[in-house]
Amino acid sequence: MISSSVLFYGIYVLCLCLGLLCVVFVSYWNIEWRGGFAWDASFLQFNWHPVLMVTGLVVLYGNAAILYRIPFTWSQRKQHWKLVHASLLLSSLFLSILGLCAVFDFHTGYHIPNLYSLHSWVGICTVVLFTVQWVLGLVGFLSPCSPLGFRKLLKPVHAWMGMAIFILSLASSLSGINEKLLLALDGNSNSTAAYSSHPAEALFANFLGVLIVAFGLVVLGILSNQRWNRLEPEQESSRSLLPEDN
Amino acid sequence: MISSSVLFYGIYVLCLCLGLLCVVFVSYWNIEWRGGFAWDASFLQFNWHPVLMVTGLVVLYGNAAILYRIPFTWSQRKQHWKLVHASLLLSSLFLSILGLCAVFDFHTGYHIPNLYSLHSWVGICTVVLFTVQWVLGLVGFLSPCSPLGFRKLLKPVHAWMGMAIFILSLASSLSGINEKLLLALDGNSNSTAAYSSHPAEALFANFLGVLIVAFGLVVLGILSNQRWNRLEPEQESSRSLLPEDN
Repeated sequence: MISSSVLFYGIYVLCLCLGLLCVVFVSYWNIEWRGGFAWDASFLQFNWHPVLMVTGLVVLYGNAAILYRIPFTWSQRKQHWKLVHASLLLSSLFLSILGLCAVFDFHTGYHIPNLYSLHSWVGICTVVLFTVQWVLGLVGFLSPCSPLGFRKLLKPVHAWMGMAIFILSLASSLSGINEKLLLALDGNSNSTAAYSSHPAEALFANFLGVLIVAFGLVVLGILSNQRWNRLEPEQESSRSLLPEDN
Repeated sequence: MISSSVLFYGIYVLCLCLGLLCVVFVSYWNIEWRGGFAWDASFLQFNWHPVLMVTGLVVLYGNAAILYRIPFTWSQRKQHWKLVHASLLLSSLFLSILGLCAVFDFHTGYHIPNLYSLHSWVGICTVVLFTVQWVLGLVGFLSPCSPLGFRKLLKPVHAWMGMAIFILSLASSLSGINEKLLLALDGNSNSTAAYSSHPAEALFANFLGVLIVAFGLVVLGILSNQRWNRLEPEQESSRSLLPEDN
């Protein structure tokens, strides 16, 4: 029987590889087919949007979420890993806000209204919830004057909000890739084939969507497995009494 | 302190109301702005697609997934509730397949290629996985000749696959509503305003997306709360030893 830790590390390596592939694929898509990057309120500035959102809100966020599940960290002081968790999420939040700036600047440059599509509604809610969650996490878990009762109350809400934000970030990414391809590959613009004619760019970007789904499901699989929860000292004795993962 | 069961039923009523609102909103959208329904390979046949997918793959599926969490069922024979769970999911699968037929027929009628968008890739994967999951569930949990060892092995996989399929169905629905609005409200067709000009239809259908997100997060919240797991007889004694929900 394969041990729980060995199984975890196998799945963790898969998760790291899928995350890396997501970043490589979203960057390559925008370099190869969308003309690369700039920060000049042009289409090239828009191209930062998918790269920054997938890298920040999906890959970095997902890795930060599963940090406490790594068995290697269980024997170490939680305070250190809280700082790593918070720093990774702050980087994720910074990249996400930069990704929003990229699209808002582009819209301003081309006089395109903001926040009209369902993708943008779900996306902006995700980043707002993420900001609230990060500030609450800082106040609740890193501030030395936060009372223990408040921490205990906040912990399940923090874990649940964290998972909800990640699911929303997956849905935002998939609807965003779909939206970009529908708008860019309309078959009317010069030198682009229609999305419906299955051009290479469409297949490549759709496959990026499949990679994001795979990464997301692996992260959520790790989060939902009770055996990989970091238990607090008073809970150690109950690990063997946990029911099978269901 | 509010009891766990009272809290459950409060959230359960919210879940039922949100599910009902999703069905009402998706139907009203297609009646009021998309011309209603027919089964004649026209645009009116396409309109069945969002209604059947949201009703079957999101609302019915979500309700079937949380069935075992209802405290009222815990004291009753599980076999009966297994049959209700399987029947609800079979109805959900039937509506989903009918929803796919609606869009394939419409595509054939208008010579539109199938399965080109990321939405369609994620959607078709969701229904295929759902079919595999239903058949495996039938063989594993309802067939009297399924060995106990196989059931024990299958249970966590079944629960995990069930959650993954639901998350994929949420992502498919959101990207599908976004895709429909981008294609229908292009500002060129007669009598439709552009999506980006915030017409009433766009706001209404975007709000349907928000309702679907809310319904999905409530269902996933119920599923992730260990205190509402139906415990098997041999696990009853360990309920009080479960760690706080995180």
